[in-house]
Amino acid sequence: MPIPSAPSIAIVGVTGAVGQEFLSILEERRFPHSEIRMLASARSAGSTVNFGGRAHTVQELTEDSFDGVDLALFSAGKAVSRHFGPMAVRAGAVVVDNSSCFRMDPDVPLVTPEVNGDVLERIVGPAIIANPNCSTIIALVAVTPLHRAVGVERMVVSTYQAASGAGAAAMRELEQQARDWSAGRPLDTPIFGRQYLFNVFSHNSAVGPEGYNEEEMKLLKETRKMWADDAIRVTATCVRVPVLRAHCESINLTFRRPLDEQEARRILANAPGVAMVDDRTKNAFPEPIDASGRDDVLVGRIRGDMSQPKGMGLDLFVAGDQIRKGAALNAVQIAERLLQGKGSRHRGIAASRGAGTSGWR
Amino acid sequence: MPIPSAPSIAIVGVTGAVGQEFLSILEERRFPHSEIRMLASARSAGSTVNFGGRAHTVQELTEDSFDGVDLALFSAGKAVSRHFGPMAVRAGAVVVDNSSCFRMDPDVPLVTPEVNGDVLERIVGPAIIANPNCSTIIALVAVTPLHRAVGVERMVVSTYQAASGAGAAAMRELEQQARDWSAGRPLDTPIFGRQYLFNVFSHNSAVGPEGYNEEEMKLLKETRKMWADDAIRVTATCVRVPVLRAHCESINLTFRRPLDEQEARRILANAPGVAMVDDRTKNAFPEPIDASGRDDVLVGRIRGDMSQPKGMGLDLFVAGDQIRKGAALNAVQIAERLLQGKGSRHRGIAASRGAGTSGWR
Repeated sequence: MPIPSAPSIAIVGVTGAVGQEFLSILEERRFPHSEIRMLASARSAGSTVNFGGRAHTVQELTEDSFDGVDLALFSAGKAVSRHFGPMAVRAGAVVVDNSSCFRMDPDVPLVTPEVNGDVLERIVGPAIIANPNCSTIIALVAVTPLHRAVGVERMVVSTYQAASGAGAAAMRELEQQARDWSAGRPLDTPIFGRQYLFNVFSHNSAVGPEGYNEEEMKLLKETRKMWADDAIRVTATCVRVPVLRAHCESINLTFRRPLDEQEARRILANAPGVAMVDDRTKNAFPEPIDASGRDDVLVGRIRGDMSQPKGMGLDLFVAGDQIRKGAALNAVQIAERLLQGKGSRHRGIAASRGAGTSGWR
Repeated sequence: MPIPSAPSIAIVGVTGAVGQEFLSILEERRFPHSEIRMLASARSAGSTVNFGGRAHTVQELTEDSFDGVDLALFSAGKAVSRHFGPMAVRAGAVVVDNSSCFRMDPDVPLVTPEVNGDVLERIVGPAIIANPNCSTIIALVAVTPLHRAVGVERMVVSTYQAASGAGAAAMRELEQQARDWSAGRPLDTPIFGRQYLFNVFSHNSAVGPEGYNEEEMKLLKETRKMWADDAIRVTATCVRVPVLRAHCESINLTFRRPLDEQEARRILANAPGVAMVDDRTKNAFPEPIDASGRDDVLVGRIRGDMSQPKGMGLDLFVAGDQIRKGAALNAVQIAERLLQGKGSRHRGIAASRGAGTSGWR
C-alpha cells in the first residue's frame, strides 16, 4: 500500500475553501497521521489554521515542502498542481489533486471511490491521483449504480451550481451582495462581474468552439474516463445559481436496457454515498441547503421519463455538497483506500501508473 | 372583431403581481379603452391603484361587475376564473384568463400569439381565451420557430423559476429573507415553508402519480395543445431558484429532420418575441436579471447537441419575464389581436368557440 498507516500529510492550498474542508474532514474521520504540513502561497504564509485543537502556522509552498511527505492533498489551482504535483511524487508522496490539471492525463487515474474505486488497487507507489470535477462526482455517485445495472446510453444534465465552485471569495461575494442589497447599497461584483444575488448565469468557464463551456466538457470527458466507455453520450448545460455550497443537477437518462422505476429506486436506496430524499406527498426532494455539510449525495424526483419508451428513460434530481463530496471528502476517501492496514483487498496488488483508460474497469 | 376599438375593460385581480403588470402594459402600449374597472376581492376593495396618471378605487368583484364590459383580463386564481369567467362571457365580454382553469378545455383556445395566434381569427364574439402557463409560453416562443422549420420530436426541459410565479407575496418572502439573513435574524417561510434565499427546490405544485408535478405536466400538455400535435414528447423538471421575476429554462431538443446550428441561429434571430443573447467570447447569455421588465424572451447558449447525431439535436438556454411575457403581456397581446381596426386579417373570419385542438393550426 502506498500510504503508510500513520502518514506525514501535506495540505496544499490550506487557506482556501477546499483546503479548510480537507482539515475538517481529516479531523472528523480521525484520519491517522504522524505530521501535518499546512502549505499555501507566500501571501498566506505565517497565518494560522486550526487543526486537532491547536493553531498551525501556514508555511509557504516551496520545492522543499514535500521532504518526507507520504500524502499530499492539493487544492490550489491548476498551475500549482502542474508545478508542484510531480515534485511531491518525486519526493515519495501520493498526491490526490483536486485541480483539473491531470484529470485527462491517460497515465493518471481519475477516481470517485463509489464509481471506480477499484482502479486504486493498481497504485503501489508514489503517484498522482486526480479528483474529478465536482459536477461529475455528484452526478456519477447517483447515476453509476443505474449504469451498472442496465447501461446508460445518454445523459442530459442541467446544473444548478453554487458559488463555492469558484472559491471562498465567490461565496463571500454572494453573501456581501445580500447584505448590500438589504442596505440599499450598490452591489460589488469583483469575481463574476455581474449581479449574483437573485440571478442565474451560465457557468463562468470559457466556451469552446462547439459552444460548450469547460464545465460541460468535463462532465462528458470525465464520465467517459471514469466509466471507461467512450461511447457514452452526454450533453450538459452548466449554470450558476445563487446558492453557497451545494450543487444540484437535473439529470435525464436514456438506458441501454429497460429499468423499471421501482427497480431504480431499489438500486439507489442501496447505493453507497447516496441518500434518497424522494417524498412526493410532502414535496420533499433534494435541496442544496440540506445537502450542505453532508457526505451523501441526495437523490430524488426519481421518475420514469414519459418522453421515452417505458423503462428506457429516467429523470432524477440530485444535490451534493460541492466542497465536501464534490472536492475534499472525495479526495480523503481516495486516500483512505490507499492507507496501509485498511483491509487485505488493498494489499499486494500489482499496479502501475501507466494503466490507460481502457484498463480501468 | 369581438372587441370594439375603444373597449370597456375589467381587470380581475388588479392588486396582484400580474394585475399590476396588466396596468403597466396597457399604459405602455396605449391600449385603447373607454373605461377601466379595477376589480379584486372584498379584502382589497376600497384601496386604490394608479393608472393613466390618476388613482382608481378598487371595487369588489361581484356578479354585476361585468355589465357593459367588452374585455376582461383575469388573474385571480382558478376558483375566481371558474366562477366569474363564464359570467363575464354571458355579459358580452371577451375574457383572457391567466389561470389554469380553462387551459385544457377543448372548447377554449390556448394562445401565445407568436406560437398559434392564428387560432384567434376564429373568435367572433364573447369567449374565454386561456393564457398558457408562464414556463410554456417562455419555452415555446423560442422553440416554435425551430419546430416550424424541422419539427421537434422531443424536448427535455429543466427550469430555473422565479418567485413571482407564486405571486407577489412569494417575491416579498424572498426579499425579506435576504434582509433577515443580513441582519442575522431567523428566516420566515410563510409561503414555501422552507428557506428560499441561497436555496433551490422542486416546484411547489402537487406531484401526480407518474412523479411529475403539475408545472411539469403543463409544459407537456400545453405544448401538445398549442402545437396541435399529440405526438410531441416532453419531459420537464421544474425547479424554483431564488430569483424575483424571470424564469430561465435549459432546453434540449431532438428534431425530426436535421437543423444546422447556424440555420437555427438564423431562424431565432428573425423570430418574433425573441432576442438573441449569445456571445460566447464575452460569456454573455440569457440571465433573469436582464430579462426582467423586457417583452422579449432572451435566447442563448445555442449549440448543436453533441450527444445526438449531427443536426438532430440542439441545446438552448432561455430567460423570460414571468409576470410580463409569462402572463400579463401575453394576455394583452391576445387582446390586441382581437381589437377592431387592428388590420384586415382579423376581420370577418368565421369562427367558433367550439374549435377543437386538431383544428387549431
